[in-house]
Amino acid sequence: MTENNNLTIKELIKVDKELLENVSILIENQDSQSILNLLADLHPADVAEILNHLNLEDATFIFNLLDNETASEVVVHLDDNFRSDILGELNSEKISDIVDELDSDDAVDIMGDLPEEVAEEVLSKIDKEDSEEFKELMKYPEDSAGGIMSSDFVYVHKDSTIKDAIREVRKNAEEFEHIYQVYVIDDAGRLLGFVQLKLLLIKPLKTKVNTIMSEDLIFVSPTADQEEVARIMEKYDLVSLPVVDENRIMLGRITIDDIVDVINEEATEDIQKIAGLSEEQEPNYSVFRISRIRLPWLAMALVLEFFNAILLSSYENIIEQFYIATFFIPIVMAMGGSSGTQAAIVMVRSLSSGEIWFKHSLSRLIKEFGVALLNGLACSVVLLLGVTVFFPGNKVTFEFGIFLSAALLTVMVTATMLGATIPLIFKKFKTDPAIATGPFVTTANDILGLIIYFSLITIYLAGR
Amino acid sequence: MTENNNLTIKELIKVDKELLENVSILIENQDSQSILNLLADLHPADVAEILNHLNLEDATFIFNLLDNETASEVVVHLDDNFRSDILGELNSEKISDIVDELDSDDAVDIMGDLPEEVAEEVLSKIDKEDSEEFKELMKYPEDSAGGIMSSDFVYVHKDSTIKDAIREVRKNAEEFEHIYQVYVIDDAGRLLGFVQLKLLLIKPLKTKVNTIMSEDLIFVSPTADQEEVARIMEKYDLVSLPVVDENRIMLGRITIDDIVDVINEEATEDIQKIAGLSEEQEPNYSVFRISRIRLPWLAMALVLEFFNAILLSSYENIIEQFYIATFFIPIVMAMGGSSGTQAAIVMVRSLSSGEIWFKHSLSRLIKEFGVALLNGLACSVVLLLGVTVFFPGNKVTFEFGIFLSAALLTVMVTATMLGATIPLIFKKFKTDPAIATGPFVTTANDILGLIIYFSLITIYLAGR
Repeated sequence: MTENNNLTIKELIKVDKELLENVSILIENQDSQSILNLLADLHPADVAEILNHLNLEDATFIFNLLDNETASEVVVHLDDNFRSDILGELNSEKISDIVDELDSDDAVDIMGDLPEEVAEEVLSKIDKEDSEEFKELMKYPEDSAGGIMSSDFVYVHKDSTIKDAIREVRKNAEEFEHIYQVYVIDDAGRLLGFVQLKLLLIKPLKTKVNTIMSEDLIFVSPTADQEEVARIMEKYDLVSLPVVDENRIMLGRITIDDIVDVINEEATEDIQKIAGLSEEQEPNYSVFRISRIRLPWLAMALVLEFFNAILLSSYENIIEQFYIATFFIPIVMAMGGSSGTQAAIVMVRSLSSGEIWFKHSLSRLIKEFGVALLNGLACSVVLLLGVTVFFPGNKVTFEFGIFLSAALLTVMVTATMLGATIPLIFKKFKTDPAIATGPFVTTANDILGLIIYFSLITIYLAGR
Repeated sequence: MTENNNLTIKELIKVDKELLENVSILIENQDSQSILNLLADLHPADVAEILNHLNLEDATFIFNLLDNETASEVVVHLDDNFRSDILGELNSEKISDIVDELDSDDAVDIMGDLPEEVAEEVLSKIDKEDSEEFKELMKYPEDSAGGIMSSDFVYVHKDSTIKDAIREVRKNAEEFEHIYQVYVIDDAGRLLGFVQLKLLLIKPLKTKVNTIMSEDLIFVSPTADQEEVARIMEKYDLVSLPVVDENRIMLGRITIDDIVDVINEEATEDIQKIAGLSEEQEPNYSVFRISRIRLPWLAMALVLEFFNAILLSSYENIIEQFYIATFFIPIVMAMGGSSGTQAAIVMVRSLSSGEIWFKHSLSRLIKEFGVALLNGLACSVVLLLGVTVFFPGNKVTFEFGIFLSAALLTVMVTATMLGATIPLIFKKFKTDPAIATGPFVTTANDILGLIIYFSLITIYLAGR
């Protein structure tokens, strides 16, 4: 092997940086041959990374230069939205040539993103057996077990020997990228167990597979949510998970490398919701597109916070006669917001990791109440001290300090309970609980916090 | 196989719910035999889940009932912090029996969590060869490639045949849980390539491994950060990644199931930082422990927001003569906070996925500026309209509306740029950029926002 093949982390990153600039120059000069030479030494994932950093026109130009096999290896590594854009620039002929080279789960993924008429054209152009298989797989929602499973799995009948199993592996070794297990089925095609690949190497050839197969079967139905699938594969440390129908007939299998993508996707989605982003922002997006991703939540926050302006104006008399109250608006808002967000995020994570069952949600809420009370008290005491030290004299009386601290405590407890409860309610009504972590709850807490604060101020002023 | 073995998702979740209650009753009655019978049918990961939901005393009680093999299978699935707590209750004899049964990476993980003197006692009690190996592995930081790698890998010399490779697999098949590849080394022990397990099944026994090995080697050094390792394995769709020293001598290998844990850990950490949590909150934590996790950031936010109270009091004269200005404090704070958080979170995600290189950070910041300008303008126009409609007449003049909108635009642009820049600065100074997504930047933006707002109000009032 030559030294050039020795990729290390450092070199990998360097290659990307330099290449992106070199590629841009070569594209400007329309120097196709040099581009191909330059890309030839790269891993398809690196080629995809370069494309992901180019604009649509340049990326499509390069993509069209690639032969079908390379294109199929590159296409699976492209960013999802950008992949649809690039494929939108190709004719159905080229797409079907690429799809022909793909594993069934990747092929279905890509066709799912195509406009319906293009997908049909593509299907009509590929091998009939493949297209039947793809049509079957395309029935399942994209984020279900059926949507991410591959129908490329090796199986044998329960009466087969190790020798038969090895023959099956040999038959499919080239076409199926990942073979970790050989599945064992009965006469009716029902899944009975599996044999780890390493066992095929160490047991005598005449051994019956059903004497060495593992029967600790964990499987899912094709309608299971991909997040559920990820949780099961993580929990049980599986590299491969069979998908079966209601009669336990095996339909496909999901491999861990696809689940890595799911886990990332889900984590990214959760974080997007916290940030109030309507979709993932990718490096080649224009200013306008990024603006569109962020604006919906900003606009919603603006409208909700406008209520706060109206709310405050309704307390006009209080503010006019006791403007000192306004000094502490930021504290009340920020502390309510922070404690509410903490509770919401922790609750959403617990729900999505399956830690909380509804039976236990009440005891969990009681715990949240205890936490809110403790932290609220701690912050109230600090605030009272702070007010006494920094706002001495007759401007902020000790009596007002007590009211202020009480308001902070009330706001923090209310906000925490709101933050912890809303995800549970969303879950109950089959809405994604993660929405509760976003600006929606924060602004709701702002409004609630100010109402509580000014109500207490009203009481204070009335009693003065 | 009996029907009882057919785990499906639904049944799995049901089992957990019922079991937890049954187990609690059995613990109360100290009915050890029934507990063991009940746990015998469960997957070790499910036993661990039950323990994770119990308090320390009950969990330790059950853990002590398990035989060493089961205990070793359960211990790897326990929540990290809780595992340390449970092991803290055991003597070094029992711990070394458990460690003896573990894969080297898991063993090292667990020993890393033990107090130093306990870890040494454990090491002195296990097999000498193993303890040397563990000591070697324990040198690496827990979150480095060396810290997560396992030394359980199969390798052969480059002049070996397939037959030799199969013999090596056979020798280690029982001890090594995951075997996906056989690594090929030269006379000096340097890594040359690898052979996929399926190839051992389909090629003639006399074939030399160096004629069929894959030379597209991707490897990392033991000091590489685990996040870097995860990124590489994801990007190149690897199930197994070799770790080599500076002479390319193979030290160990990292498997994808460990990386799944890393990805989850990192996503959880990112989200924790956004929420301002000092560590992950686990289901069995007490109210006091949860309070301790959340309080540091709340206290910090309180102190920072207290500056805002002092700041507002310094604008006392303005507020007194023009209290209408205070109506819009919530809008200014919330919009600055939201746009700053959006920018910070997007930047942190881009940095951690390796999308942004420093060379490109300037063009990225220019883009952020464009986005902030667009969204700021959109929100300003809406605010101006809202103020005109809802605050008509002489109370809020159109002129003040213009100043208010200008303040909103300035605050949103400043907050966005602050949110986008701080992660880059943190990264530059080798601090975790994700800290920038937490309450720290939000409160910094609150302060900055109010300063900008009241500065513009001052100008407005001066010109009136």
